Amino acid sequence: MTVTIKLGQLAEFLGATLRGDGDKDITGLATLQEAGPGQVSFLANPQYRKFLAVSHAAAVLLKSADAEGFAGDALLVPDPYLAYAKISHLFDPKPKALPGVHPSAIIAEDAHVDAMASVGAFAVIESGARIAAGVTVGAHCFIGARSEVGEGGWLAPRVTLYHDVRIGKRVVIQSGAVLGGEGFGFANEKGIWQKIAQIGGVLVGDDVEIGVNTAVDRGALADTVIGNGVKLDNQIQIAHNVQIGDHTAMAACVGISGSTKIGKHCTIAGGVGMVGHIEVCDGVFVTGMTMVTRSITEPGAYSSGTAMQPAAEWRKSAARIRQLDDMARRLLQMEKVVEAVTSGGKASSEG
Amino acid sequence: MTVTIKLGQLAEFLGATLRGDGDKDITGLATLQEAGPGQVSFLANPQYRKFLAVSHAAAVLLKSADAEGFAGDALLVPDPYLAYAKISHLFDPKPKALPGVHPSAIIAEDAHVDAMASVGAFAVIESGARIAAGVTVGAHCFIGARSEVGEGGWLAPRVTLYHDVRIGKRVVIQSGAVLGGEGFGFANEKGIWQKIAQIGGVLVGDDVEIGVNTAVDRGALADTVIGNGVKLDNQIQIAHNVQIGDHTAMAACVGISGSTKIGKHCTIAGGVGMVGHIEVCDGVFVTGMTMVTRSITEPGAYSSGTAMQPAAEWRKSAARIRQLDDMARRLLQMEKVVEAVTSGGKASSEG
Amino acid sequence: MTVTIKLGQLAEFLGATLRGDGDKDITGLATLQEAGPGQVSFLANPQYRKFLAVSHAAAVLLKSADAEGFAGDALLVPDPYLAYAKISHLFDPKPKALPGVHPSAIIAEDAHVDAMASVGAFAVIESGARIAAGVTVGAHCFIGARSEVGEGGWLAPRVTLYHDVRIGKRVVIQSGAVLGGEGFGFANEKGIWQKIAQIGGVLVGDDVEIGVNTAVDRGALADTVIGNGVKLDNQIQIAHNVQIGDHTAMAACVGISGSTKIGKHCTIAGGVGMVGHIEVCDGVFVTGMTMVTRSITEPGAYSSGTAMQPAAEWRKSAARIRQLDDMARRLLQMEKVVEAVTSGGKASSEG
Repeated sequence: MTVTIKLGQLAEFLGATLRGDGDKDITGLATLQEAGPGQVSFLANPQYRKFLAVSHAAAVLLKSADAEGFAGDALLVPDPYLAYAKISHLFDPKPKALPGVHPSAIIAEDAHVDAMASVGAFAVIESGARIAAGVTVGAHCFIGARSEVGEGGWLAPRVTLYHDVRIGKRVVIQSGAVLGGEGFGFANEKGIWQKIAQIGGVLVGDDVEIGVNTAVDRGALADTVIGNGVKLDNQIQIAHNVQIGDHTAMAACVGISGSTKIGKHCTIAGGVGMVGHIEVCDGVFVTGMTMVTRSITEPGAYSSGTAMQPAAEWRKSAARIRQLDDMARRLLQMEKVVEAVTSGGKASSEG
Repeated sequence: MTVTIKLGQLAEFLGATLRGDGDKDITGLATLQEAGPGQVSFLANPQYRKFLAVSHAAAVLLKSADAEGFAGDALLVPDPYLAYAKISHLFDPKPKALPGVHPSAIIAEDAHVDAMASVGAFAVIESGARIAAGVTVGAHCFIGARSEVGEGGWLAPRVTLYHDVRIGKRVVIQSGAVLGGEGFGFANEKGIWQKIAQIGGVLVGDDVEIGVNTAVDRGALADTVIGNGVKLDNQIQIAHNVQIGDHTAMAACVGISGSTKIGKHCTIAGGVGMVGHIEVCDGVFVTGMTMVTRSITEPGAYSSGTAMQPAAEWRKSAARIRQLDDMARRLLQMEKVVEAVTSGGKASSEG
Repeated sequence: MTVTIKLGQLAEFLGATLRGDGDKDITGLATLQEAGPGQVSFLANPQYRKFLAVSHAAAVLLKSADAEGFAGDALLVPDPYLAYAKISHLFDPKPKALPGVHPSAIIAEDAHVDAMASVGAFAVIESGARIAAGVTVGAHCFIGARSEVGEGGWLAPRVTLYHDVRIGKRVVIQSGAVLGGEGFGFANEKGIWQKIAQIGGVLVGDDVEIGVNTAVDRGALADTVIGNGVKLDNQIQIAHNVQIGDHTAMAACVGISGSTKIGKHCTIAGGVGMVGHIEVCDGVFVTGMTMVTRSITEPGAYSSGTAMQPAAEWRKSAARIRQLDDMARRLLQMEKVVEAVTSGGKASSEG
């Protein structure tokens, strides 16, 4: 699948300053190292500046400052990475579904599917569900009773929405994601776990992305809430009644326990775990694999864990950590002894 | 979807002492803070007691002791959280499937589906499988050859059971869960991994719950075994030949390696990992994200990991941990010096 | 489902030295402790040697050295575990699909499905896809546009390949795995995340295994690459543009961030996380739940984390870790004081 766009058209699309041959045919995008003569590249990270001179790219997205001394064709933009993001969609080989319902799909009589929506093979859409205009429902998707997908959404093949899951506009959901699963709610009766029905739903804002095999549980009583512009990577677990603020991003394999509330514009790195019933304020960055066991009330970066070592050294460190409390006591004890000795020494020297 | 139940009926259902208007219509459940005039709430956690006086709930599930001084309607019960669990199912908007097989489902001729079971759209049930009375098999489910689902089970849409997976009664399995996948078994032959066929099955007891996208691998030789009343949350990995004792609960994102045996009534918090071939006794609680690298023979709580810090402070701690072995040696060395000095001092003062 | 094979046939199949009755019927495999009179067992781990004398196995796969003093029937082989791996497939009860396309499958007109391939119920194969001879595509699988599955592959029910995913020969993919999902690529524009189209694909070598619910994202620009003989367990996350070298194995719940390059013959234990844009050389072993935050340039074993303790002791250790930087300073300070005192003492005694 090949798209061909003139370099001048790209400049126009981006509002970029064109330096070079606007008639050049562009057929794709690539890194500076890998770009061939039909491909556009970009320089965003200064550590790749060394590849600029030797790149075979047809043209490079550049800041004006970086363009000095570069002889090749260029599109001058204030933010090359953002410019790359914007034109990437022009070269995306992802198949675009046409409006219409595949004859194999099973749609409840009282579900509403907009005429401008696309529903794939073997999709199931249940009673009272609503699929808005411009939505793609992939093959094998299941849309539960009364669930809604807002305008322009894109559901990959095999996405499951249970009942009463309401999704905003332009939301992207990858394969295997499950929204509205029954959260982990049990009351313990003499050692036996009794299930609590999860009667809340899930509410997802606009412009959200939800990754492969990510799970967002329905609320126990009220809804689980995902704010506008939130981006969730793959293999994430969002428990019942979690609230995630607008424009917060989470990398893969994060687990958020029940009723935890995360602020806006947070960045949660991969493998982070958060306990339940805590609050994380706006503007927090949590580094990879950190265990968040208490609320965070100040913006900033937070971490836990230990640094990697060769295993033989690590075994020593790990053994010593278990002795730390003892070491701390001995250190304090010695400080007292040394203090006594040195003040004793002083006393005698003064005496 | 609205259910209406008289407050008096709820009291009768629970065996609770009714204090107030039994004719009041109840249409749902909510927290003390969020409950409206048609909703019942509950007071379980003492820290929410402050919301009791200001709640708009139609009635509150309360212990007798907490009811003193509360003017509103109440249902007096010994365990309000358990009472809430029990009535939650009355208000569950989850669609209930009627008995019968959807015409699009594909069922092997020699599979047995009870007339009182429900099989959803596009489900596939293979040769020799058995689906008991009162079972719901959701849309897009796959039930492999000779697999069995016992009475009253509920499989959400898109659950996969491979062949030879036997499931007890009243088992709930959420979307995306996979039981009977081929475990990670390979023999290394000169650097090349040779696959070992996984010829065991999976055996699941009664009253088990298995969460969204959780994986339970089949046994290599004998079966992987999940005991009665076990509750597994989302995104969990149970490797081949693991055994989990009755009424043990695991929160999300736990990973249990092959052949590990976990006792009864254990609670494993989120993100815990256990190495293979160990045994954990009954009544163990493992805190979140702990790495369990050896058998546990005494009931109690166990942990690993480090506490979260601001990232700048954490970097210092992490660097110091790598110096710990050196620090421990220096501390010991200094203790010897100080011991020598102080006993030397004593000697000289005594001399 | 029962297979019966003569013990002598197994010896021939393995090239083993038969000691005992070659006419004995063998119907399965089991551990030394569990084997019954029709089953073959094996002794690989010396710690199970104690079970050899009391085993009821029909015959045991043994090294010659271990056979001395064992009175039962045996198959003498150089590597009993490998021999077990090889014969395990003879007793595998996994249903074998016959060539042919299930009538319910939906296959694009311009897709190519070899006559000797098997396609299950409700599978969807899109435009330009290619399924080679001997491939099994399970029920509910989705094969995206232009994707290819090489000879002898086995896709469990419910596997998703997005578009432009190319898979080598004899590749096994378990249920719920998703290859080619759109990686987590966003450019931040004034606090708002702008999606970057993921225009690369996924390239998977020969003899690869991919576990249940594992995700391998497509490349942002170039392909994500999985080498020959790579084995990925369940619940793994492989981000965009990761490269994994030949014969590397990863246990469950591992997460590899974008553009990280892992060498050949590495072993990554369960729950390990790696940050993005690093390189790990050949022959590295990373222990469970380690956080890999920098490139590894020397083969060997690497670890992070702390050892499990009873929770009460752990709380003390965790608190002390936060004091470590302070402790290290105080230790150094005391060393100076002690040094001054002892050299002062020396000076005075010498004076």
